[in-house]
Amino acid sequence: MSTTIDKAAADVFEKAMETIPEQAEKLVIFAWSGELDKLWPTLILATTGAAMGKETTVFFTFWGLFPLVKNEVRLTGDNWMQRMLFVMNRGGDQHLKLSKMNFAGAGPAMMKHLAREHHVASPHELLEMAREMGVKLVPCQMTMDMLGLKREDLIEGLEVPAGATMALAEAQGAITLFI
Amino acid sequence: MSTTIDKAAADVFEKAMETIPEQAEKLVIFAWSGELDKLWPTLILATTGAAMGKETTVFFTFWGLFPLVKNEVRLTGDNWMQRMLFVMNRGGDQHLKLSKMNFAGAGPAMMKHLAREHHVASPHELLEMAREMGVKLVPCQMTMDMLGLKREDLIEGLEVPAGATMALAEAQGAITLFI
Amino acid sequence: MSTTIDKAAADVFEKAMETIPEQAEKLVIFAWSGELDKLWPTLILATTGAAMGKETTVFFTFWGLFPLVKNEVRLTGDNWMQRMLFVMNRGGDQHLKLSKMNFAGAGPAMMKHLAREHHVASPHELLEMAREMGVKLVPCQMTMDMLGLKREDLIEGLEVPAGATMALAEAQGAITLFI
Repeated sequence: MSTTIDKAAADVFEKAMETIPEQAEKLVIFAWSGELDKLWPTLILATTGAAMGKETTVFFTFWGLFPLVKNEVRLTGDNWMQRMLFVMNRGGDQHLKLSKMNFAGAGPAMMKHLAREHHVASPHELLEMAREMGVKLVPCQMTMDMLGLKREDLIEGLEVPAGATMALAEAQGAITLFI
Repeated sequence: MSTTIDKAAADVFEKAMETIPEQAEKLVIFAWSGELDKLWPTLILATTGAAMGKETTVFFTFWGLFPLVKNEVRLTGDNWMQRMLFVMNRGGDQHLKLSKMNFAGAGPAMMKHLAREHHVASPHELLEMAREMGVKLVPCQMTMDMLGLKREDLIEGLEVPAGATMALAEAQGAITLFI
Repeated sequence: MSTTIDKAAADVFEKAMETIPEQAEKLVIFAWSGELDKLWPTLILATTGAAMGKETTVFFTFWGLFPLVKNEVRLTGDNWMQRMLFVMNRGGDQHLKLSKMNFAGAGPAMMKHLAREHHVASPHELLEMAREMGVKLVPCQMTMDMLGLKREDLIEGLEVPAGATMALAEAQGAITLFI
């Protein structure tokens, strides 16, 4: 008889469980800033999360999209406003600035040197690692439209561009950080 | 008999469930920055969250309070320190700066132009939309006290000013972002 | 008989519950910014969270580590690059700058004055309070290595330095904020 009871109880339980939102271990980062000192924690947290087995997504939006531009590409935009943005803010993960103490590029060079000395991976290496570890790197479609960025201007290995709805759907039940 | 078992199992289950914190779909944004390029993602995420059916709250604190000042109000503060803050940082969602590449106002004008061209709503429109969609817009009481802001200096349609306790209570189980 | 059924149902239930991740009320802040106007919300939220009974952790990383340097310590670093960082960015919670409107120190002085007048605790007092309330203040080991910071350069009462893995493990199921 105990089997019957177990089965009945399990059925009731299972049905009830369906009403509880699923709780997979997830990490969703909204990468809004394009600067070196913000891209670093974004990618260190993303790769660490992936290494811990968390489903990890980075949604690159606004300034955050610039580091995903291919290093060899010189963007020109569709009009003088977009052109001006790219002159001031050349894309690519080799051309990043610091949010403070940039000193016309001396700051980032110094930071990278200190990192290398202490065996901290560069953003470029971390981006590679993240892709290999299955971190979903998602460019924001709306930002691409506003900036006149085309898919082929961006590095390989990214997910299909998407919007805020996708990011917020992923974010439910996840560790969420806006960086 | 199976009815009895089901009932017994369901009772045990229900009692146990009460110990699990509720998991409504919620989004809580701490809007700390008053800049145009941060207010934009704040309001795009808030309205998207609301459209997805999430209970959405934006807690405006520190610099984040400035965009909520009525555009026609010129704040003077209660003393020279508050006055100086408002001279440097005129409130209102029509007077916002960019966090970088501000160029004495040319940057924000350019951004707004690009947005309009690509049918992205302005922060002013998004604030309206958010209110209409039932997003709770909560001004931080402590910041209002520090800055000498009165309720009538702020736009209509906001919730009663509150503190960090309210915001953290809302944040439990929610998607949380500090922008 | 109803006891038997209850017992059977409870057993099935308990086993199934073990698969749901625990949901203690937790707050985890990634304190990346070292500035006065960011340290303030970090510590106000942390102490409020602790007062609400949440297990609260602040993970201090990158620029966020500077306010934890003892006020009386003058850091020199191990090489000219680290030295330069500390000349520009003297550590300690008495030497913090604002992220904007710093005016060579006039901004922070003004802010502190306004806060005092409105009975808002200073970052120094809030750090004390946080420690007394059992908030876990965790310095980031990797940042310490990069900056050449030693444990004895930092204030008392901190947890053992740790890495991103610890922070993300704490963050699962918590309110998470990157400030």
